[in-house]
Amino acid sequence: MSNHPEVPVVPVGAHEPPYYVAVFTTVRTQEQSGYSETNARMEDLAKDVPGYLGMDHAQTPGGLGITVSYFRDADALTRWRTDVEHRAAQERGRAEWYQSYTLHVAKVERSTGFTRAEVPQAGA
Amino acid sequence: MSNHPEVPVVPVGAHEPPYYVAVFTTVRTQEQSGYSETNARMEDLAKDVPGYLGMDHAQTPGGLGITVSYFRDADALTRWRTDVEHRAAQERGRAEWYQSYTLHVAKVERSTGFTRAEVPQAGA
Repeated sequence: MSNHPEVPVVPVGAHEPPYYVAVFTTVRTQEQSGYSETNARMEDLAKDVPGYLGMDHAQTPGGLGITVSYFRDADALTRWRTDVEHRAAQERGRAEWYQSYTLHVAKVERSTGFTRAEVPQAGA
Repeated sequence: MSNHPEVPVVPVGAHEPPYYVAVFTTVRTQEQSGYSETNARMEDLAKDVPGYLGMDHAQTPGGLGITVSYFRDADALTRWRTDVEHRAAQERGRAEWYQSYTLHVAKVERSTGFTRAEVPQAGA
């Protein structure tokens, strides 16, 4: 999903609650033409939404995909949900790309993060 | 994650709000001995928690993992969070399996689902 594969993967961190999370779980069809390009465009568009906090994505090969996006408040999420280009992508997703999906929109009440302490490399 | 690979993958569906969601995003270390067994055991344990609604998991090979679990209310999630065996697994995860993770606990306010209408197969 990233244009910078050399950058280590790090999950979006904990923010100060409350904030909003949209959990989008998908199973895709065999028909995926245009999906990658649209997906990359949606990631860029979301970043421009005031109040956007970040996005995490994981995809099991041949299985479930989960995209989680984080927003400062409900207004930010509404702006994203109703974006004209995003709505067109949603429509195309239902017509072509998704076998099934569920969207859960939720207000984050608590969050915690963990990062392993780095062990110095021998010779580094 | 499933013991039944022949069953089609379907994301956990929309439930009547409010309910709770725990979004657990992870990057794992190279040290994964015991992870699969513990993970399978945790899935079984979670199912026994009263108010457990389901769990979705996706794993990008070599990248991010996302586990989303759903509970009827905050009490159910607290029971799961404080389960003795689950706490031991969390501890081991920090010691061995996780490079970094974030946990977001949120109250679902709205959810929607979509399933593609089946097109009859020729000859079926």
